[in-house]
Amino acid sequence: MKKIPSTISPIVAVNKRARKSLYRQVYDAYRGAIVDGSLCPGQRIPSTRVQALEIGISRTPVLNAYEQLLAEGYFESRVGSGTVVSRSLAERVTVFPATSASAKRARPRRVSKRCSISSTREDLHRRLHVESSVGSQVAFEHFPLRIWNRLVTRHSRNLQADFLDYGDPIGLKELREAIAAYLRTARSVHCEAEQILIVSGSQQGLEISARVLLDPGDRVWMEEPCYAFARSVFAYNGCRIVPVPVDAEGLNVIAGMKKCRNARAALVTPSHQFPLGTTMTASRRLQLLDWAERNGSWILEDDYDSEFRYEGMPVASLQGLDRNSRVIYIGTFSKVLFPALRLGYVVIPADLVERFLAVRLAMDICPASFPQMVLADFIREGHFSRHIRRMRAVYAERRSALIESIHKELGPAAEIQGAEAGMHLSIILKGISDREIAARAARQGTSLVPLSLLYTGKPTRQGFILGFGSTTVKEIPDAVHKLRIALDLK
Amino acid sequence: MKKIPSTISPIVAVNKRARKSLYRQVYDAYRGAIVDGSLCPGQRIPSTRVQALEIGISRTPVLNAYEQLLAEGYFESRVGSGTVVSRSLAERVTVFPATSASAKRARPRRVSKRCSISSTREDLHRRLHVESSVGSQVAFEHFPLRIWNRLVTRHSRNLQADFLDYGDPIGLKELREAIAAYLRTARSVHCEAEQILIVSGSQQGLEISARVLLDPGDRVWMEEPCYAFARSVFAYNGCRIVPVPVDAEGLNVIAGMKKCRNARAALVTPSHQFPLGTTMTASRRLQLLDWAERNGSWILEDDYDSEFRYEGMPVASLQGLDRNSRVIYIGTFSKVLFPALRLGYVVIPADLVERFLAVRLAMDICPASFPQMVLADFIREGHFSRHIRRMRAVYAERRSALIESIHKELGPAAEIQGAEAGMHLSIILKGISDREIAARAARQGTSLVPLSLLYTGKPTRQGFILGFGSTTVKEIPDAVHKLRIALDLK
Repeated sequence: MKKIPSTISPIVAVNKRARKSLYRQVYDAYRGAIVDGSLCPGQRIPSTRVQALEIGISRTPVLNAYEQLLAEGYFESRVGSGTVVSRSLAERVTVFPATSASAKRARPRRVSKRCSISSTREDLHRRLHVESSVGSQVAFEHFPLRIWNRLVTRHSRNLQADFLDYGDPIGLKELREAIAAYLRTARSVHCEAEQILIVSGSQQGLEISARVLLDPGDRVWMEEPCYAFARSVFAYNGCRIVPVPVDAEGLNVIAGMKKCRNARAALVTPSHQFPLGTTMTASRRLQLLDWAERNGSWILEDDYDSEFRYEGMPVASLQGLDRNSRVIYIGTFSKVLFPALRLGYVVIPADLVERFLAVRLAMDICPASFPQMVLADFIREGHFSRHIRRMRAVYAERRSALIESIHKELGPAAEIQGAEAGMHLSIILKGISDREIAARAARQGTSLVPLSLLYTGKPTRQGFILGFGSTTVKEIPDAVHKLRIALDLK
Repeated sequence: MKKIPSTISPIVAVNKRARKSLYRQVYDAYRGAIVDGSLCPGQRIPSTRVQALEIGISRTPVLNAYEQLLAEGYFESRVGSGTVVSRSLAERVTVFPATSASAKRARPRRVSKRCSISSTREDLHRRLHVESSVGSQVAFEHFPLRIWNRLVTRHSRNLQADFLDYGDPIGLKELREAIAAYLRTARSVHCEAEQILIVSGSQQGLEISARVLLDPGDRVWMEEPCYAFARSVFAYNGCRIVPVPVDAEGLNVIAGMKKCRNARAALVTPSHQFPLGTTMTASRRLQLLDWAERNGSWILEDDYDSEFRYEGMPVASLQGLDRNSRVIYIGTFSKVLFPALRLGYVVIPADLVERFLAVRLAMDICPASFPQMVLADFIREGHFSRHIRRMRAVYAERRSALIESIHKELGPAAEIQGAEAGMHLSIILKGISDREIAARAARQGTSLVPLSLLYTGKPTRQGFILGFGSTTVKEIPDAVHKLRIALDLK
């Protein structure tokens, strides 16, 4: 160890008018000097008296700073040798060379493989664009904020200190009971409150399901085309995606079996396929359940917006048809209420509840309590069903206006698909490149989501997804007119 | 296909006084009969007129039910042959044999490998026990609920419809700015608001970090002993845990390098080691940073409770010492405010922000907006720092009472560790089996967390973790006396 003459005092600059305390300034100056190598291990430190005199401050802050530096191991103090920079710091080699910027370049900043594959900047922004254009098609102006806020205020006033602690990892009992009752009646889901796991939305529901059910390398059927955000869940979990075509009856089960009979799971949106809007027929549903049972596979049913159905009565869930507990049913309040709430649910086969719970605990322990209390009351007091009824009328009107405008502006060139439910429909256009048109439209200030973006493999359809949830009846004709301009139709 | 005489009418039992509509009852009866096989593909269905007469209800609900069954593909209708059960349903083989219970046993209900390893029922309950006993040592009765609720009500009244939409996936700007300012001043963290990712707590912070940085099979240094919930994050991510001993200076970096120099990451709690309470010395900090830089590894710094320090000033963060952006700094509001809030943060090296963001999007899209707004104001208006100051005094008092009681009741047999900070301390006891004592205490109605539970390998210390955050000064002597009884000290 190099011996350094003890007479050299480090420069400790303090500013008496600074907001930082003198004690802190002295501490920071020493720590900084040690870390950047200007003070070396073993180097003697002036006594507090000398240091205080030198800086021109009282001795107390210097004493306190020295004590802290001793406590944290930057200084050491030995009988007979005064205070020195800790000799133990010499065990490390020079930590921070002056060329740290070039060193940074030299050292690989390796991230996980799954992460390097799926998160290019472009991909991220593309997904965000689709999400913001289509995902949040909610008519926020019709949300009963006054009622909601009354519940917020009521719960806020009556909040007990107990409710500040961790909540039940499976979710608030009152909310799970309210959801179970709703699902049994409105969606023909077979469930008890004990099977309901409260999550932050369908995305987290999918994520937890993938963790519980799938290993890296497992194959998963996904509808082709599908929701890009769902695909990313499986990609990050190292699963191999098997795109299975969707036709007028929904997912083509036979095609799936031909491509990969032994897939471990299938993700489907049977009530209202995203993005094509197809409702899966009974025959396909039974085929799919049959495949899952024979193959020991799992079905993830993402039922994201089927509360809003405009033709016929709401379609019963696939889960309700399943006699073998092979279906994990995932729902969300993002579409039917609002996304910023971050609440959704998973209906778990009874024998898997503990496994889901263990994964949820490892992932984020439990959901926040307060929004769950407010939502439970919102459902129990009937505001939820009233809101659904009211919104169905609002969306139905917007939907009709959109269909009418499409017919008027685009004529028979545009085939409308999947307008029976939800807050979006698709138009299929033959002989165009939807991405090119979207790029042109973007230059004209119109944002379009090309259907082909949502294919995993080669797109077999070209067109656009048109959300109508957040566009008023008055705004719709103009929006469709802009689309027509982008399409450059004569 | 077996031809079934069309004259047999299925039994459709309706109850006119039931809450379920007649239309729904007819629909359910048919669907049920088709699904359970009592109606076969091709089987003729009576006309709506006949069916209505047979059941003794008006024709409209029957018509509606038939329409729905047609729409969903359970029925088909061909000119000249009336309505029949869809022949396409025959494509499937018998889906639901009567012996579905035994079939269930026959079909393996395979879950993911990582899930089967780490989520035994016992393990889950053990982790929950540790969490509830130690994790939530917060003096809830001192939380300024009135102030918090005033902010809740204010935001609730002024909520704009815009805020109902998805929020920024990285978190609310106002909150990130408030946190960055706090961390720079109070924790010597080098950061800008753009590097702060809002998460639901340190658990999610760890989870996202593991996803971004680690692949299955990667080795991770963990402190031995450590927080069990943190271990589960790496276990579920398929990582291999390398337990590295903790001594009086914190994590023993040299020991870690001997065991596995090439670990991809290290998880540390340098400010207040969990559970031993050690503060990592400067020398060890620099060694650790040096190792990470030389090896291209990552350091996850979990700083869960260092706001509450009773001796010396708060210790500066490891992140603040790092010149090579190798440290991911994770903090939470669960201890300093309350766990039910579900808010925490990750300070991300600038070049990794987009990768973290992509994983967060895939995991749960974005954090809930409302609690972020309330918390941002709570910090900006000074309530946060006032609360910390007040709580430090409350906890300091409880801590002194606990130390005093331990000295009085247990005498020199119990070595107290890590009482400098936080809301828990550890007592080390020689020549005992902490699990046996905990089991005995449980029979006497006293809940104890044995230190040995928190070891990954063979425990080298026996003792207990005593939280003092949620036990009042008045209750402490009695609690320690009970511990003495459990220890059976003369």
